[in-house]
Amino acid sequence: MPVIRLINGCEGAALDPLDRGAQYGDGVFRTLRVARERPQWLEAQLAKLGDDAARLGIDAPDTAAWRADLAKLDGRLSGGVLKLLLTRGIGARGYRPPSGVTPTRIVIHDSTPPPSDQWPATGLNLRVCEFRLAEQTRLAGIKHLNRLENVLARAEWDDPEIHEGLLRDASGRVISGVMSNLLLWRNGRLLTPRLDRCGVAGVTRARLMRHATAAGFAVEESELGLDEVMAADELMLCNSLIGLRRVARLGARAWPDTEIYDVLHTLLDAE
Amino acid sequence: MPVIRLINGCEGAALDPLDRGAQYGDGVFRTLRVARERPQWLEAQLAKLGDDAARLGIDAPDTAAWRADLAKLDGRLSGGVLKLLLTRGIGARGYRPPSGVTPTRIVIHDSTPPPSDQWPATGLNLRVCEFRLAEQTRLAGIKHLNRLENVLARAEWDDPEIHEGLLRDASGRVISGVMSNLLLWRNGRLLTPRLDRCGVAGVTRARLMRHATAAGFAVEESELGLDEVMAADELMLCNSLIGLRRVARLGARAWPDTEIYDVLHTLLDAE
Repeated sequence: MPVIRLINGCEGAALDPLDRGAQYGDGVFRTLRVARERPQWLEAQLAKLGDDAARLGIDAPDTAAWRADLAKLDGRLSGGVLKLLLTRGIGARGYRPPSGVTPTRIVIHDSTPPPSDQWPATGLNLRVCEFRLAEQTRLAGIKHLNRLENVLARAEWDDPEIHEGLLRDASGRVISGVMSNLLLWRNGRLLTPRLDRCGVAGVTRARLMRHATAAGFAVEESELGLDEVMAADELMLCNSLIGLRRVARLGARAWPDTEIYDVLHTLLDAE
Repeated sequence: MPVIRLINGCEGAALDPLDRGAQYGDGVFRTLRVARERPQWLEAQLAKLGDDAARLGIDAPDTAAWRADLAKLDGRLSGGVLKLLLTRGIGARGYRPPSGVTPTRIVIHDSTPPPSDQWPATGLNLRVCEFRLAEQTRLAGIKHLNRLENVLARAEWDDPEIHEGLLRDASGRVISGVMSNLLLWRNGRLLTPRLDRCGVAGVTRARLMRHATAAGFAVEESELGLDEVMAADELMLCNSLIGLRRVARLGARAWPDTEIYDVLHTLLDAE
């Protein structure tokens, strides 16, 4: 597996097990698509990484540090997936965030295309997960390194014909896919679940909301039950790896036709 | 800082950043006290580590593997703190737990005594944390590597005169300290918060409950509000590093006298 790892810019370095990323999942991350030898939407991804770090009280490095790391991969970013992780760094024992510690930058590049590249263009097949997300306003929206909930949810199915699982919170509100954000088209409005109690507010979701708004669509963050999702005129998933994908089926419900997907896809591609 | 690190029994090895422990906090851990050159309550700690791993679907190694790791530290376990981490291992990309992967064993020994050794024998000074724990039955009780909640809670205070913070869940139930379990003595009964929605069910808590029951005390896991904690006749904290400690003060409430603490302490020491 042709994977490159940089730790604080140092290729082949390994992680100290004392790093708070390994000890507590005390950090944040981003997953980026590499295309035309460039990480896609790098500016927006680094901005979100910095925002997420700030919410945890982690002093994110200047984006120049990440750019210097990526410069070391020049000529080798042939495609695939780039992952950027930022941990609080190596500190004293105990949960207390140490002061004056240098955060750890981790860059991982895997040139193999993500499995989702094989997903059918005709639409994805979803299931509803039994697993429920906990509601934690202090962590909601952040792409942090505490991802056991996603791991447990993803462990629910083995069937390769199921592409993604739909996650609800403890109160039954639909939040997102296990590794993607959710968009609904209903009665001429574009809806996406509010992410103020749980879930990850992705960069592609933000881009889509911005473009759809600019194109004159009514775009809303809403509380959505499973019945409302089932009643949608069209259902879509998005993230930085899959881009925007339409949903063909969720359990017994099928969406054979598409009305808005192509329009949104064009908006996203035109950026 | 004289710290020894073993990864899968290999001293000085570092962690692959692709390890799911670093990527997702996908693992469990134990913190042990080292005394008389031996990790204390090793049997019970390894049993709990195995139980916690099983709840996450991680195939824990036989305890012989850990004992072989620890044998490599023979003659060097002079005291201090031993930490055992078990991650799901290095797997393919994505949240899905890979099959057939070997979990990663991490052993960290720090021979410096924990800061809590300096805490006063006359009793601890507590605060009530603003931070609320999320309720997640699937993770409740497990000492997993997703510990951002503890980190954020511990970040609330800097005052070295405050030894520990009391954590409540979203519904206001008192659950535990940030790094310890809670015990209450009230009307001749020993109470400890139920940990079926959040919190970590520690080995020292289990030992105390077992010994107190065997000694004829009424011991109960209960739902406890902050008012009930304030109304306790006596308040105690426990974990594997601090053992059992009595609480002298929680905010404005003080407990100048002790009734049961010495009895429980003797039971614990006599094991």
